[in-house]
Amino acid sequence: MADTDELVNRVMGKLLDASNSGSKPATKNVGKTDLTEFVGTAPVGDTIGMVIANVDSELSKNLHLQSEFRSLGILSARTGAGPQIMAVDEAVKATNTEVVSVQMPRDTKGGAGHGSLIIVGGNDVSDVRRAIEVALADVPNKFGDVYNSAAGHLELQYTARASEACHFAFGAPVGKAYGLIAGAPAGIGVVMGDTALKAANVDVLSFASPAYGTSYSNEGVLHISGDSGAVRQAVIAAREVGLKLLGTLGEEPKNDFPSYI
Amino acid sequence: MADTDELVNRVMGKLLDASNSGSKPATKNVGKTDLTEFVGTAPVGDTIGMVIANVDSELSKNLHLQSEFRSLGILSARTGAGPQIMAVDEAVKATNTEVVSVQMPRDTKGGAGHGSLIIVGGNDVSDVRRAIEVALADVPNKFGDVYNSAAGHLELQYTARASEACHFAFGAPVGKAYGLIAGAPAGIGVVMGDTALKAANVDVLSFASPAYGTSYSNEGVLHISGDSGAVRQAVIAAREVGLKLLGTLGEEPKNDFPSYI
Amino acid sequence: MADTDELVNRVMGKLLDASNSGSKPATKNVGKTDLTEFVGTAPVGDTIGMVIANVDSELSKNLHLQSEFRSLGILSARTGAGPQIMAVDEAVKATNTEVVSVQMPRDTKGGAGHGSLIIVGGNDVSDVRRAIEVALADVPNKFGDVYNSAAGHLELQYTARASEACHFAFGAPVGKAYGLIAGAPAGIGVVMGDTALKAANVDVLSFASPAYGTSYSNEGVLHISGDSGAVRQAVIAAREVGLKLLGTLGEEPKNDFPSYI
Repeated sequence: MADTDELVNRVMGKLLDASNSGSKPATKNVGKTDLTEFVGTAPVGDTIGMVIANVDSELSKNLHLQSEFRSLGILSARTGAGPQIMAVDEAVKATNTEVVSVQMPRDTKGGAGHGSLIIVGGNDVSDVRRAIEVALADVPNKFGDVYNSAAGHLELQYTARASEACHFAFGAPVGKAYGLIAGAPAGIGVVMGDTALKAANVDVLSFASPAYGTSYSNEGVLHISGDSGAVRQAVIAAREVGLKLLGTLGEEPKNDFPSYI
Repeated sequence: MADTDELVNRVMGKLLDASNSGSKPATKNVGKTDLTEFVGTAPVGDTIGMVIANVDSELSKNLHLQSEFRSLGILSARTGAGPQIMAVDEAVKATNTEVVSVQMPRDTKGGAGHGSLIIVGGNDVSDVRRAIEVALADVPNKFGDVYNSAAGHLELQYTARASEACHFAFGAPVGKAYGLIAGAPAGIGVVMGDTALKAANVDVLSFASPAYGTSYSNEGVLHISGDSGAVRQAVIAAREVGLKLLGTLGEEPKNDFPSYI
Repeated sequence: MADTDELVNRVMGKLLDASNSGSKPATKNVGKTDLTEFVGTAPVGDTIGMVIANVDSELSKNLHLQSEFRSLGILSARTGAGPQIMAVDEAVKATNTEVVSVQMPRDTKGGAGHGSLIIVGGNDVSDVRRAIEVALADVPNKFGDVYNSAAGHLELQYTARASEACHFAFGAPVGKAYGLIAGAPAGIGVVMGDTALKAANVDVLSFASPAYGTSYSNEGVLHISGDSGAVRQAVIAAREVGLKLLGTLGEEPKNDFPSYI
């Protein structure tokens, strides 16, 4: 337990450092509450973290969870699914918790993409609280390669070692490198995907588009797996072509946090 | 028929009184039309009411109605499904009409929730027109416990005696008390639901979330039934925790019409 | 090949003429790119056209295309499905290409309707590029009977001779007249549809609404086929009633390009 705590503290310290290097404060100056269920917010995407120490059994049965647990941690956002899923992926690596639900509303407040509802389960409320704290702290980093313009957005994600959240949400093989390449409007994601696959030798997990594998969002999303160098190279090649294409529809797309890939 | 008319007039009088106590006019100062199909608008949610006296049979066959009727009444809105469904619930109690379709588009004009398309059927156009008039007049009241902020919204609904619209849309047992508890972003609805079920002894009908029982809206929605006092108590407990949680994402959520619960 | 080129040039000339008669420039003054994949943009709906000369085979397998082709042409937009589908309908008539995918995200940037992702296939990149050029040039014309207000929108489309895109997307019989009649919020589309069917003797292909045949958009959409005069008459009658109904929810709905029906 001491070892786990130390590991978690090291991970959180690193995440907070990275987050603070961005141009925005790590936490919004928002109204506080003394509710025990409230964990915190992230400074992007209207992202809120909460816990339920001992979930009502009737509620639990109706939540469509993969497995039932005594304690639930909840990460919920209006804007962003990929960043929050990647942040939870780090969080479950670092804590004794399990991903039990990943849902993607068609949201982004008038934008082209998804919001998110992610639930992790654990046998102890301190575990799930820690997981949500780790995830909240990491959300800004994982927005580092989200590029927005008035016309649409791009999202790139990369991890050298996918864990449970990427597996649950996107079918990524656990322990292997995983990459997400998204463009909106969706056609930009198709061309980005083609570019990625020509840039490096990687495995296609799936291609999501408005009618397949999204919640009718206006995104084309390639999910890839493979050798870490190749996945990263594919993601970077796709980013370059995506920025050019989305730029033809207006101003240059911008990220709000520093790129991490 | 005289009795029914009197009842309807009494119900409408009461609804209009309640509606006028709000801070907004009961009807928008909108462009008028002499179309016989037009019934009126409500002053919230871009809600419009219409009737078709004698529906084209080919259209009727393609509308996916639960039963076919000669006359159709239509309530349609950009923002709000719960308030309009609850308003139609009152309307069908008071008129000789039947709910034949309830559909929930993913709308709210960039918000996190649903709009609505509700169709009632009757054998006489005066019946369906009356139903739509009653529903339009009641819509503002049923927005009384909808609380909005820039980050999301809460919705609470309660009736001591559910009727056909609640049954059709949410599986509420007819004649029993029914409550709706919704929070957006969706995770807030999960915690509100847990709070509600711990506050009073009620039956869970279902829990709707982005991937289950919504049209990919960013809401967590608990539907409950049971003893009227218990249902009301559960709804009120959930409202309190919801207001605190949504408030952490920015300003205090506000309702545009007086609370009725 | 010379004949085809001449035909295409004539068609494009005509489309560009029609487009230029509108009040907006035919192409946005947007950032240019030297990417070979980029074809151009249309001045409405954040519409972008792209081509892939030789699509990666793994991507192709994952795109859910009706048939696989070496070269793909892509038309993708944030706002508008009908206009882009009708424009591609003209484009496939005029070029040696085939429609292989039509997807309708729930988009319109906070509006009530759809965006679009349309993919055409061909054996030669010059064919698919030409198809996308023709479609881009025609998009503004096909927005001629899209009427917007703050509360919603109407869309009317008409062709005397439907081709592959209308067939693929809406089940329109190829070679016959086809009409699309849409209103948002959805209930307005129901009344428009009823009006259309009483105005002329046409065949109902389907009626789409939030829960049936849309991507949860807030539209009621009647698809009709039949004699060209009758289809046109039905569409015009529906437009008149739709403008009156949508006008009751606020200001008069306006089209941004000249009506073509």
